[in-house]
Amino acid sequence: MRVLVIHGPNLNLLGTREPEIYGTFTLQHINDALAGIAAEVGCRVDFMQSNGEGEIIDAIQASPGKYDGILINPAAYTHTSVAIRDALAAVGTPFVEVHLSNIHKREEFRHKSLTAAIAVGQICGFGMQSYLLGLRGLCQHLSR
Amino acid sequence: MRVLVIHGPNLNLLGTREPEIYGTFTLQHINDALAGIAAEVGCRVDFMQSNGEGEIIDAIQASPGKYDGILINPAAYTHTSVAIRDALAAVGTPFVEVHLSNIHKREEFRHKSLTAAIAVGQICGFGMQSYLLGLRGLCQHLSR
Amino acid sequence: MRVLVIHGPNLNLLGTREPEIYGTFTLQHINDALAGIAAEVGCRVDFMQSNGEGEIIDAIQASPGKYDGILINPAAYTHTSVAIRDALAAVGTPFVEVHLSNIHKREEFRHKSLTAAIAVGQICGFGMQSYLLGLRGLCQHLSR
Amino acid sequence: MRVLVIHGPNLNLLGTREPEIYGTFTLQHINDALAGIAAEVGCRVDFMQSNGEGEIIDAIQASPGKYDGILINPAAYTHTSVAIRDALAAVGTPFVEVHLSNIHKREEFRHKSLTAAIAVGQICGFGMQSYLLGLRGLCQHLSR
Amino acid sequence: MRVLVIHGPNLNLLGTREPEIYGTFTLQHINDALAGIAAEVGCRVDFMQSNGEGEIIDAIQASPGKYDGILINPAAYTHTSVAIRDALAAVGTPFVEVHLSNIHKREEFRHKSLTAAIAVGQICGFGMQSYLLGLRGLCQHLSR
Amino acid sequence: MRVLVIHGPNLNLLGTREPEIYGTFTLQHINDALAGIAAEVGCRVDFMQSNGEGEIIDAIQASPGKYDGILINPAAYTHTSVAIRDALAAVGTPFVEVHLSNIHKREEFRHKSLTAAIAVGQICGFGMQSYLLGLRGLCQHLSR
Amino acid sequence: MRVLVIHGPNLNLLGTREPEIYGTFTLQHINDALAGIAAEVGCRVDFMQSNGEGEIIDAIQASPGKYDGILINPAAYTHTSVAIRDALAAVGTPFVEVHLSNIHKREEFRHKSLTAAIAVGQICGFGMQSYLLGLRGLCQHLSR
Amino acid sequence: MRVLVIHGPNLNLLGTREPEIYGTFTLQHINDALAGIAAEVGCRVDFMQSNGEGEIIDAIQASPGKYDGILINPAAYTHTSVAIRDALAAVGTPFVEVHLSNIHKREEFRHKSLTAAIAVGQICGFGMQSYLLGLRGLCQHLSR
Amino acid sequence: MRVLVIHGPNLNLLGTREPEIYGTFTLQHINDALAGIAAEVGCRVDFMQSNGEGEIIDAIQASPGKYDGILINPAAYTHTSVAIRDALAAVGTPFVEVHLSNIHKREEFRHKSLTAAIAVGQICGFGMQSYLLGLRGLCQHLSR
Amino acid sequence: MRVLVIHGPNLNLLGTREPEIYGTFTLQHINDALAGIAAEVGCRVDFMQSNGEGEIIDAIQASPGKYDGILINPAAYTHTSVAIRDALAAVGTPFVEVHLSNIHKREEFRHKSLTAAIAVGQICGFGMQSYLLGLRGLCQHLSR
Amino acid sequence: MRVLVIHGPNLNLLGTREPEIYGTFTLQHINDALAGIAAEVGCRVDFMQSNGEGEIIDAIQASPGKYDGILINPAAYTHTSVAIRDALAAVGTPFVEVHLSNIHKREEFRHKSLTAAIAVGQICGFGMQSYLLGLRGLCQHLSR
Amino acid sequence: MRVLVIHGPNLNLLGTREPEIYGTFTLQHINDALAGIAAEVGCRVDFMQSNGEGEIIDAIQASPGKYDGILINPAAYTHTSVAIRDALAAVGTPFVEVHLSNIHKREEFRHKSLTAAIAVGQICGFGMQSYLLGLRGLCQHLSR
Repeated sequence: MRVLVIHGPNLNLLGTREPEIYGTFTLQHINDALAGIAAEVGCRVDFMQSNGEGEIIDAIQASPGKYDGILINPAAYTHTSVAIRDALAAVGTPFVEVHLSNIHKREEFRHKSLTAAIAVGQICGFGMQSYLLGLRGLCQHLSR
Repeated sequence: MRVLVIHGPNLNLLGTREPEIYGTFTLQHINDALAGIAAEVGCRVDFMQSNGEGEIIDAIQASPGKYDGILINPAAYTHTSVAIRDALAAVGTPFVEVHLSNIHKREEFRHKSLTAAIAVGQICGFGMQSYLLGLRGLCQHLSR
Repeated sequence: MRVLVIHGPNLNLLGTREPEIYGTFTLQHINDALAGIAAEVGCRVDFMQSNGEGEIIDAIQASPGKYDGILINPAAYTHTSVAIRDALAAVGTPFVEVHLSNIHKREEFRHKSLTAAIAVGQICGFGMQSYLLGLRGLCQHLSR
Repeated sequence: MRVLVIHGPNLNLLGTREPEIYGTFTLQHINDALAGIAAEVGCRVDFMQSNGEGEIIDAIQASPGKYDGILINPAAYTHTSVAIRDALAAVGTPFVEVHLSNIHKREEFRHKSLTAAIAVGQICGFGMQSYLLGLRGLCQHLSR
Repeated sequence: MRVLVIHGPNLNLLGTREPEIYGTFTLQHINDALAGIAAEVGCRVDFMQSNGEGEIIDAIQASPGKYDGILINPAAYTHTSVAIRDALAAVGTPFVEVHLSNIHKREEFRHKSLTAAIAVGQICGFGMQSYLLGLRGLCQHLSR
Repeated sequence: MRVLVIHGPNLNLLGTREPEIYGTFTLQHINDALAGIAAEVGCRVDFMQSNGEGEIIDAIQASPGKYDGILINPAAYTHTSVAIRDALAAVGTPFVEVHLSNIHKREEFRHKSLTAAIAVGQICGFGMQSYLLGLRGLCQHLSR
Repeated sequence: MRVLVIHGPNLNLLGTREPEIYGTFTLQHINDALAGIAAEVGCRVDFMQSNGEGEIIDAIQASPGKYDGILINPAAYTHTSVAIRDALAAVGTPFVEVHLSNIHKREEFRHKSLTAAIAVGQICGFGMQSYLLGLRGLCQHLSR
Repeated sequence: MRVLVIHGPNLNLLGTREPEIYGTFTLQHINDALAGIAAEVGCRVDFMQSNGEGEIIDAIQASPGKYDGILINPAAYTHTSVAIRDALAAVGTPFVEVHLSNIHKREEFRHKSLTAAIAVGQICGFGMQSYLLGLRGLCQHLSR
Repeated sequence: MRVLVIHGPNLNLLGTREPEIYGTFTLQHINDALAGIAAEVGCRVDFMQSNGEGEIIDAIQASPGKYDGILINPAAYTHTSVAIRDALAAVGTPFVEVHLSNIHKREEFRHKSLTAAIAVGQICGFGMQSYLLGLRGLCQHLSR
Repeated sequence: MRVLVIHGPNLNLLGTREPEIYGTFTLQHINDALAGIAAEVGCRVDFMQSNGEGEIIDAIQASPGKYDGILINPAAYTHTSVAIRDALAAVGTPFVEVHLSNIHKREEFRHKSLTAAIAVGQICGFGMQSYLLGLRGLCQHLSR
Repeated sequence: MRVLVIHGPNLNLLGTREPEIYGTFTLQHINDALAGIAAEVGCRVDFMQSNGEGEIIDAIQASPGKYDGILINPAAYTHTSVAIRDALAAVGTPFVEVHLSNIHKREEFRHKSLTAAIAVGQICGFGMQSYLLGLRGLCQHLSR
Repeated sequence: MRVLVIHGPNLNLLGTREPEIYGTFTLQHINDALAGIAAEVGCRVDFMQSNGEGEIIDAIQASPGKYDGILINPAAYTHTSVAIRDALAAVGTPFVEVHLSNIHKREEFRHKSLTAAIAVGQICGFGMQSYLLGLRGLCQHLSR
């Protein structure tokens, strides 16, 4: 079982900026913790991060055959990118959408997700744990 | 660490009705699985289910002092009950909101949650796993 | 053929209040008239009325196996209760929705029914006759 | 007691097209069944069908003095014709609005009726029975 | 002159929770203060509180003949309960709507009251004083 | 100077129906009064009335070369007919839109006119006088 | 029969500014022409113009007893002044609303009039003629 | 304790116009009654009324140092004046907003108050009593 | 392969009116050009034009058995006619919707098509070429 | 080059109220700083401030011939005054709109400006600097 | 005559994914077919595809001088990219917008195109034929 | 004091395209003029332009430590990019938003800025001067 973890725009800044919203851990901390969970549940995880909508689409398009599932935090593109939604729909790989913060507590324009409707499920608000729970949920889903 | 699990209206029918949406497991199956996770993460879980908005409010009001956290699937009341939101806000107990189905795939009126904005986090779409992931997330949150 | 007739909130006041909107007959008059139609079309009718959303849900949940159809006037809950809709959807019993008054003549918030979309059909505006026509329509539907 | 039955646009195609929505009976079947009910409840029924908004208005305008009530399925004009509404309001003849299908199950633009607010009542979803129940309801109303 | 005071959902928590919004007084303090005003203006007051929509409706329905007016803080049901509105309309007892907090300072969904349009008047924002002013206003209204 | 007066749907019923809204005069009374004004201001008026949208379009299309201006009361089609608007735009004949009643006092859906934006001007609320003032305004406009 | 003519804000600039919208005539030209019509139809006209909302309200409040009707072009206040509407409603003097330009051809925010719903009638689009037709219509209305 | 009472536009007409909405008492009656309450609760009241938005702003701006609180009925400006809201916010004097009528029973555009969100509280629907209750509430608030 | 070409309201005016929007060619020019394409792609075309919604519905209803496809420019009825949509849906004949002008460049109310959602495809903005491309596309579709 | 600086309602309170929003400088400080910039860029500035919508309109109307440009902070009237917009449009003097605070950070109703669409440009958020930058921008514009 | 064909995001997946929506042909098939039409109508076509919004803008910016027209399927960017619209507007090259599927049959958010309003025309729903018809229409437009 | 100037999509075309909207100067002209102002106010400016959303985010992310402020014209991304907003929020560098044209005069979708709410201030409508004023405002802000 192989899972591609995609981090959307600005997540590379984690741990250095706005800790009151996103916490003090870095992206590397998240990836390390995900690797730990992956070992526990018996799957393999690879990671990519990009600030570019097109590059994220490229990564999604390249995933079939290499990955059985995608764990994605589309960040700001959650609310604006029909193209990422279309890429996820086109490849058909099961994916789980996660958010560090509780998007329902934030600005109105963050309440609507363009990708959630075609995801296996959505998890938000648990900080780094959103990723870890998401990976568990995804692997559980894939192993059925 | 003690957690109250609240199942909202119609969840007592689980396993007997609409399996294409909610699966074939029963509420007892969920509770048993939750008890398993609770044992694993070292917390105690109690359960209640009600079809009545007032009874769910009563249960929430009675929780302070007895429970450190609430795991709630408000079901239909997610979208209509300001009173349950107010009860959760009033007691101030940290809570996690879970949904069996992916609410973003369903009718427009199910996309908006009145309670999510004051929850620790929200998890939806993983079937019974939504509860299990939610309990993990809640306990992790409480142990910080 | 067995039919459960459910009267929603405030319908127990019929005949004593607001006759200019609802007429001077009482709930007992309606039930008696329904029993008459039931005899004519060859079905059995039972009745329940409640002001509580949860109790109506309980009644709906208890109906499978005992009733072949439901004749319901959800009254005010027509416009606010996703939970009653979910209960009706979950049990899957065919049901007909009736209203004494013409809901399209009244306040804007009464024009939208949450339950109508999953009903066999909807009848409104005929006063007590709405129930009688509804029972005929339901039995006709069940006998197909 | 004389009743004019008006069938709106495309209802002349009944029985030949889209049976999954409208059933396999023809307009003649409906008219025959209505004649049966009319005989039972002691009224006289005449019929007209037109695809033209103006012709339906002409028929409504010609009805006073000849008919005591109108049973109308405005079909698509339900949602778009202020002119038919005005004609019905102007002649003042009591009328009942019926629909074969449950309009609340269909596209959003079919949920709103321009004529319902001035009707005696509205019945939808019972297939051919919508007409028969409507005629009963109308005659009952006229005989008061 | 007899007045029924109805406290809606979560008001039983007053004084123990969220003092920054609702103050440190308890429901008993409010009731005692109301009794004082009642003595001053020469009326009798009884009290009830419930978290259940149906129970509040039951109380309203039972009030005719026993009470000349109702002083109600519908709390969260202000914004969601058509059924309580219908109960108040059905019994026809004059009523005054009060709120501890200034609902216009809070979330958008609290700005709209379903019951205000049929009340004698509405008072909000004065904390416990909202009740006391409301009782004065109601008695003044009833004594005309 | 020749003017075509077009009366929209249901205006043929004037004087016989709903006098509380439209007055007791008939269409003939209006036409006679218009003829009187026409004589006074030195123009010629012809009249047509139809309940059919297509027939009104036909009349508008036939007007160039025969009429210098159009005085139209589109009645219900004011609010629903893009086709009549297009016909008036296509022939380019200056036209004045009149209404017997004050459309701003009536239902919300009568407040918006599809034709007003391309008219010379709009007059409403003066009963039969709306026509007479409209003819004066139109002739004044044409004589410039 | 005495009529007060009220010109709203910026109408004192007429003839000096934006002739492509309002024409080249001045307010004095309009007043002179109105005096001519007044003489013809046998009424007396007085005039006032103000850029101040409060002053227009003062003038409306001072009109009862001195004037039988009001001819008003509220100009920009048409779309924003509830206070002028309230003044006109409070004094109860019949009034006619006029506009030089066709407000339906202009910006969306000019399509809605706060005062039209309580006017005798509304006339727009005829330039200076809107006033003259409005005075005719008002006097005709008052003489009934 | 000194309180400035501000009466908004058209309130000077009280008692002479629209008694079915506002009652038969005059502004002087209200002021006299307010003086009575003021004596009872031990505060001093001054009064001002204006139809002009700017003059009301001037009065509010002049109040700091002279008054401890403001009792205001902004009347029509409640719904349209951001400038009065800004003046009240800028001076920071605690104020109570009152309305004679129940604004929730009237036109949609009267349901929204621009000033209520920054008021101590709002009272509506009690006729002259709204002022008296408002003064009590304000003085109670100021004396804390 | 037989195709019925339906021209909606006002298209008979082509070439004589508003050339800046619709060009200088006439309906006959379009029909001749369509005949040329028909010969090229090997199908037979017949033509009809009407300003009447009902007549267009009649033509659509008469098409099964005689035509394999419909090429329709519903013109103004595109945006207002549910009845034409229903006729097209009822007969089930594949159809292509064309528009001379680019409807997305014009008024907001022309952006929405009621018929497009059930068409094979939609073509707009190419002037007369919209028809020719539409016929090619339709025949191509039918020949599959 | 002569410029009229118009300060809208409540700006006379600057420096005495709400310093956390508007800073501690007074209107005189702004005017002095503007005079400094004016000397630098070679223009003459005059100042006016009013809380009255009508007086601001009067000032705008009086400006042609005396001023080449207007620098205006319409404050609260930015969002509510069509009349000030009309005055600015009518005189045609180029104007620049400035705001001390960043209106996009504040309440939703402050995001929309009625005057911006006809301004040369708009500047907001720089505190007193908004005026100084606005004067530079205006003079630069006028000198082209 | 030279035409640049731009394929938007995810179109490189054609033929491999979601054949029920997009068919089984690949992008190469489309390009080959376009080359065939190009040969027939005498123009030259070049192709580019990108998943990146910025790269598509770069390609559009580079087109003037090299291409006389653009045939573009903006895919998901149709509904979200103001930047691509601006690029097309800036270069001013005539362009035709095409879509494989009928966008009006799909999700609500796909019904609105940001680019269509500045296109020559739009074609959707014909599968690969949309491109071929679009190229014909574009070349026909360019050759005028 | 170091400032990064970011030019958004399509601004590299300045001076070559749409001069009626953006003027005839090039981006180099703007940069040169900005360098002049920078010299005057004593700051250093660097420049970047990109059509790619991701590249602009990269540039913003790279700015902390190198720049004290950002002057940005997000162009089309102003209205669609939550990701650029998030990048600006994440780095926390003070920034000023500028637009060449007056965005309030253009299409409705350009009136709303996603970035303005977190900017120091916004300037629009002054052509190249918007940048120069923006740099002055930014440096003034940074030097406080």
